[in-house]
Amino acid sequence: MEGVVVESREWFLAAYSTDGVPTSEHLKLRTVTLTLASDSIPDGHVAAETLFISVDPYIRTKLTGTPDGLNLPQYHINQVITSFSVSRVIRSKDSKYVEGDLVLVPSAPVAEYSIIPSSGILRKIDGESGISLPDYLSSLGVPGFAAWVGIELLGEPKVGSNVFISAASGAVGMVAGQLVKIKGCKVIGSTGSDEKVKLIKGEFGYDDGFNYNKESDFDAALSRYFPDGIDVYLDNVGGEMLEAVLNHVNKYARIPLCGMISQYNKVWTEREGVRNLLNMIGKEVRMEGFMLATYWHRFGDFAQDMEGYIKEGKVKSKNKINIGIESFLDSLSSLFTSSNIGKVIVQVKA
Amino acid sequence: MEGVVVESREWFLAAYSTDGVPTSEHLKLRTVTLTLASDSIPDGHVAAETLFISVDPYIRTKLTGTPDGLNLPQYHINQVITSFSVSRVIRSKDSKYVEGDLVLVPSAPVAEYSIIPSSGILRKIDGESGISLPDYLSSLGVPGFAAWVGIELLGEPKVGSNVFISAASGAVGMVAGQLVKIKGCKVIGSTGSDEKVKLIKGEFGYDDGFNYNKESDFDAALSRYFPDGIDVYLDNVGGEMLEAVLNHVNKYARIPLCGMISQYNKVWTEREGVRNLLNMIGKEVRMEGFMLATYWHRFGDFAQDMEGYIKEGKVKSKNKINIGIESFLDSLSSLFTSSNIGKVIVQVKA
Repeated sequence: MEGVVVESREWFLAAYSTDGVPTSEHLKLRTVTLTLASDSIPDGHVAAETLFISVDPYIRTKLTGTPDGLNLPQYHINQVITSFSVSRVIRSKDSKYVEGDLVLVPSAPVAEYSIIPSSGILRKIDGESGISLPDYLSSLGVPGFAAWVGIELLGEPKVGSNVFISAASGAVGMVAGQLVKIKGCKVIGSTGSDEKVKLIKGEFGYDDGFNYNKESDFDAALSRYFPDGIDVYLDNVGGEMLEAVLNHVNKYARIPLCGMISQYNKVWTEREGVRNLLNMIGKEVRMEGFMLATYWHRFGDFAQDMEGYIKEGKVKSKNKINIGIESFLDSLSSLFTSSNIGKVIVQVKA
Repeated sequence: MEGVVVESREWFLAAYSTDGVPTSEHLKLRTVTLTLASDSIPDGHVAAETLFISVDPYIRTKLTGTPDGLNLPQYHINQVITSFSVSRVIRSKDSKYVEGDLVLVPSAPVAEYSIIPSSGILRKIDGESGISLPDYLSSLGVPGFAAWVGIELLGEPKVGSNVFISAASGAVGMVAGQLVKIKGCKVIGSTGSDEKVKLIKGEFGYDDGFNYNKESDFDAALSRYFPDGIDVYLDNVGGEMLEAVLNHVNKYARIPLCGMISQYNKVWTEREGVRNLLNMIGKEVRMEGFMLATYWHRFGDFAQDMEGYIKEGKVKSKNKINIGIESFLDSLSSLFTSSNIGKVIVQVKA
């Protein structure tokens, strides 16, 4: 690393963003000076440089100033944005960590350098495992864990189950499709372009898929793709697609609610109402929202499963890596414009 | 009983009823002649006279000709309507039953007399138990069992939980409130008149309640009644009230969907959309529809619990008993006009 005093760029909230896609009016980059000498780091803390930053849709819901659907704490004006990172320890005031350790930090500052409490480190990672560092933010990170909780713990598809996944070419959908396939199910995804449909079938293990932008009637599309109905729906979009699914559920279907990306940029009264929840009674459907914080104690089980799948070649990630911390805002907005494929990651340090 | 040949009045479906409250255009009464001699009753069947008939909202969803939300088999044109009954065996071709036995029949013809397979009998009841026969159709029947499944098996409130129940003065709400109270929770109900609010507080164990017809803003009402949020919501109405509840749920709230009486008389595209399902993610809410058929194997456990509560005076029923099989149609439509309180029952035989 450079000298003891470093310049560190960081993204902070300049103004609340209540609807639409956040812009440079809301999130701004600034440069601060950090002193990383041992005597300026508190006990139980480490100084770290950020290598890779995960860019996830839930971040958008923390920018409005008012906790909404996901109920997450909001960033204050002037506060540095946080996200899941792969970081490298450069100074340590905790005997469990030494300089050079690679660590996963679920709530790291979106900054080039930071001083963080070691209690905020999820775990060390092995740089020699043969797994690429970006994969620790995709199949082994937030989206992979979300896919695993949604499918393994809540969706519980059985051999032969018919599984539907929306936002299938996104970071969660990419992993979820492959997990479902490992379990011997039929899996079909919806996504936003013909190119992405090709991708989920060619690379993410989906049996089939459709481009929702080409379907004027989701109900009709689901009739074609699920003549035998849907047993598990991993919902990443909410709204109109969720409503259509509820017209095609089988008895005892399960709907883990992982995210509702179609709804994040609207105030709740403007969101699409789901009119057919009554179907949940007749079909005895279980719909359940989940947040990863509730399941951190299972992260070890997940990581063990997933590292095995990756090493066996059963789960592959497609990561869209944008270079430089300055690309964070564009990376975040790309999640809401259907312009991304797979997992969006910012590479902070080469 | 009268002679071997009886005249029996029965209600049948004359025309499908797709929206609105069913009328005499849709359901008609006719008189048929039945021969009840032993040699005209097949083996494994009994002839029975109907004493009391349960009148429940789900019946309305079987009159449209097209299975909808509750996914129940539809009556055909000309088919006799069926419902849960207390009946008396008058001839038996099954050694398990003798003349005079009182039996519960989940799917009995809405008729004065009928010949039914003994496999369709749920169980015998003890006329000397001290429990009134109508109670076998209320606290010990369909609505009581629905309340028990919703609260005991799915809602699982804990001591001190805040529980909300809609349609609280209806047959399910009446029992559910008392069950919740036995578990040491706070229970608040919504219902359609000030008189009913008084009733649920005075007789059904509710700590408090409100008249939804007087609340222009359900959200504001729930803020007043649940300053600490809602842990369990037993939904009997759906629509706008369900949406309001989702703005007040606590973390890990459970919403057993028992019925959606506000939605039964509309085609699904005209139903009220619920716009804030996103809240289910942040609060990690579990919403689950249920039908009693899935839980019949637990009926014995339920009946044992409930008979105990009734004998201890912990659960009381208010039954609205309409006299004569001719009152069935008016009894059914009363469920949708807020004109009934407690459990609606038709007394067929004095």
